[in-house]
Amino acid sequence: MNAPASEFALIDRHFRRPVQHADVRVGIGDDAAVIAPTPGAELAVSVDMLVEGRHFMAGADPKALGHKALAVNLSDLAAMGARPRFALLAGALPEPDEAWLDAFMQGFRALAQRHDVELIGGDTTSGPRNLCVTVIGELPAGAAITRAGARAGDDIYVSGTLGAAALAVAAARGNVALADADRDRLRARLDRPEPRVGLGLGLRGVASAALDVSDGLTGDLAHILEASGCGATLEWARLPADPAIAARLDGPDRALALRCLLAGGDDYELCFTAPAHSRASIAALSHALDVACTRVGVIDAGDALAVVDRDGAPLQPLPRAFDHFA
Amino acid sequence: MNAPASEFALIDRHFRRPVQHADVRVGIGDDAAVIAPTPGAELAVSVDMLVEGRHFMAGADPKALGHKALAVNLSDLAAMGARPRFALLAGALPEPDEAWLDAFMQGFRALAQRHDVELIGGDTTSGPRNLCVTVIGELPAGAAITRAGARAGDDIYVSGTLGAAALAVAAARGNVALADADRDRLRARLDRPEPRVGLGLGLRGVASAALDVSDGLTGDLAHILEASGCGATLEWARLPADPAIAARLDGPDRALALRCLLAGGDDYELCFTAPAHSRASIAALSHALDVACTRVGVIDAGDALAVVDRDGAPLQPLPRAFDHFA
Repeated sequence: MNAPASEFALIDRHFRRPVQHADVRVGIGDDAAVIAPTPGAELAVSVDMLVEGRHFMAGADPKALGHKALAVNLSDLAAMGARPRFALLAGALPEPDEAWLDAFMQGFRALAQRHDVELIGGDTTSGPRNLCVTVIGELPAGAAITRAGARAGDDIYVSGTLGAAALAVAAARGNVALADADRDRLRARLDRPEPRVGLGLGLRGVASAALDVSDGLTGDLAHILEASGCGATLEWARLPADPAIAARLDGPDRALALRCLLAGGDDYELCFTAPAHSRASIAALSHALDVACTRVGVIDAGDALAVVDRDGAPLQPLPRAFDHFA
Repeated sequence: MNAPASEFALIDRHFRRPVQHADVRVGIGDDAAVIAPTPGAELAVSVDMLVEGRHFMAGADPKALGHKALAVNLSDLAAMGARPRFALLAGALPEPDEAWLDAFMQGFRALAQRHDVELIGGDTTSGPRNLCVTVIGELPAGAAITRAGARAGDDIYVSGTLGAAALAVAAARGNVALADADRDRLRARLDRPEPRVGLGLGLRGVASAALDVSDGLTGDLAHILEASGCGATLEWARLPADPAIAARLDGPDRALALRCLLAGGDDYELCFTAPAHSRASIAALSHALDVACTRVGVIDAGDALAVVDRDGAPLQPLPRAFDHFA
C-alpha cells in the first residue's frame, strides 16, 4: 500500500487531471477554477451535501457513492433543462483511505464522462464522512424550466417509475421482504440513480414547470404548486409504480407501497407540467429517449393538492414526504 | 422558542431572500440557481469545507463562523483577482437549532453585504456540523492571477501581517501564554479573517502570480514555485510578523514564533509576485487601500525555496506547513 498521503498528494493522485475543455481557463490546483461561459448562455448552479448515516450508510460501496454524489446534482440540472458542464467536489473523510477514494472517483468519473462534465475544483479535509458536490450547467438565455411556470389546465407528468428507491430503503431496514428477482434492481435504483439529463434538455420550451423527485412526489409537486400559485389533482392509480410497488398495492403491504409511491424519496425522476397541446411533443420525446413520461394529473386554479382514486375520491390519509429535520 | 422546524421552513426563514441582482435569473428555492454572466467576463469558482473539530471547535461562536465560512472562500477569489458575486451554502447541522442558524447567517450575511455577494443556493441536512461554501466571482477575460506566472527576478510580497492566527491557536491549546493586550486581536485574526478582496482586484495586471496564505507561507509559496517552475529566496527577517510574533522571535518562544510566522495557517493574507518595475504601482496600491504589502524575497531560476537570515545563511530546520491529513 502507499505511504500515508498528504492532502496535496491526494489531490494530485485522485482529482487533478489535464484540463479537458477549452473554456476551462484554470482547472484544479489554483485558488479557484476559472471558466469562460459560452457567450449568451446562462448558468445553472446547484449544490448537494451527502452525509454518512443520513444519505448513505457507513460501509456503503464507494464506487456507487461516487456515482450518486454526482447523480443527485445532475438531476437538479436536468430539472432546470440545463446541460451539465462542470463540477466541484468537497469531501471530508475520516482518514486518507486511498482505496476508498480511488473507488469513489471511479464512480464519480464514469458518470461525469458520460455527461461530459469536467471536475474543475474541490477541497479535501479530514472529518466525519461528507461529500458536497457543486455542479454548473449551461442554458440558452431565458430557457430555464423553473418550478413557477405551471398554469391551470396543464398536464402533470412523471418520468420513469416511482417507489423503487424507497422500497429498497424499507427492505434494508427490515420493514419488508423482497423477492430475489427484485432485490438488485431496487437496490440499483437507490444506489445508482440515473439523472434524467436528456429528458431535461428535451423539455426546454415544452414543459411549463419541472423539478426532480428527490423527497417524494406529493411533497415535491407541492413545491411546484406553491411556486406557481395553483392547485392540482393527482390520480394516484395512474402513477408509474415500480413493478414491486404495483404488486403490493392490493396486499398487506399496501400502506408501505403507497408511501413509497407517493412520498418515497431518492427516485430522481422528473415531475413536470405542460399544456395539453404539448402531448404529442412529449410522446415523441419519450419515444426518442426511451424514457416513459406518464400523465398523472392536472393543474387547477385552486391552491391545494388533491390525491384521488380512479373514482375521484380523495386518498386518506396522504403519506407524508421526507424531511431531513422531521 | 419555535416549534421544531422543517427543512423547508428553515430554508425560508434563514436562507431565502428576495433576489437582489438582475443577473440572478433564479434564486434560492428552485432545483438550481440560474445566473446570467456579464458578457465577456470569466467566472472564478471555489469551494471550501469547514468541519467541526478540525477547522473550528465545538461551541465556536456561530456568528464568527458564518463570517469565516464565507471569508475563506472570498480569500480564494481575491487571490485570483476576481470580484465576488455569488455564494452557495451547504450545511450539515446536528439539530435544527434556530438560534445557532440565525447567528451563523448574521455573520455570513454581514460579510456578504460588504462585498455585494448574493446567496443564490444551498442545501441543508442533519449530520455532524459541516459548512461547505461555494463562491463565484467575475473577472475580465484573461485577467485571472494564477499561481503559474512567477518569473525569475520577480519580487515576492506578503500583505498585512503573518502569524497571528496560528499564535491564537497555540494559545487556545495552552502552548503559549498571551498578554491581555494581544488576546482579542489575535483571536479576531483567527475567527474573523478579512479577505483581501480589494487588494486582489488591484493586483490584476500587476501581480505575476498570487495565492492566499491559508496553510502557511512556506508551504503556500512552494505551490507558486511548483506551478511557475522556478525557485525563490525568502528573507524571513523581512516577513511582516504580527507584533506578538515579533516580540517572541528573540526569546524562549522563538521556535513557536518562527513556526507561526513561516508555517502558520489561517492568516488569509495574499502572497504574490511581481516584476521589479511594478514596485511603484504596488506601493501606490498599498497606500490607497491602507494594506501593507511587504517585499520579502525574490524569485529565481532554480527549483527550491531557500529561507535565509539577514546574512544569507539558510534557516534550519524549516518549520513544516499544515496538512489536513498529516
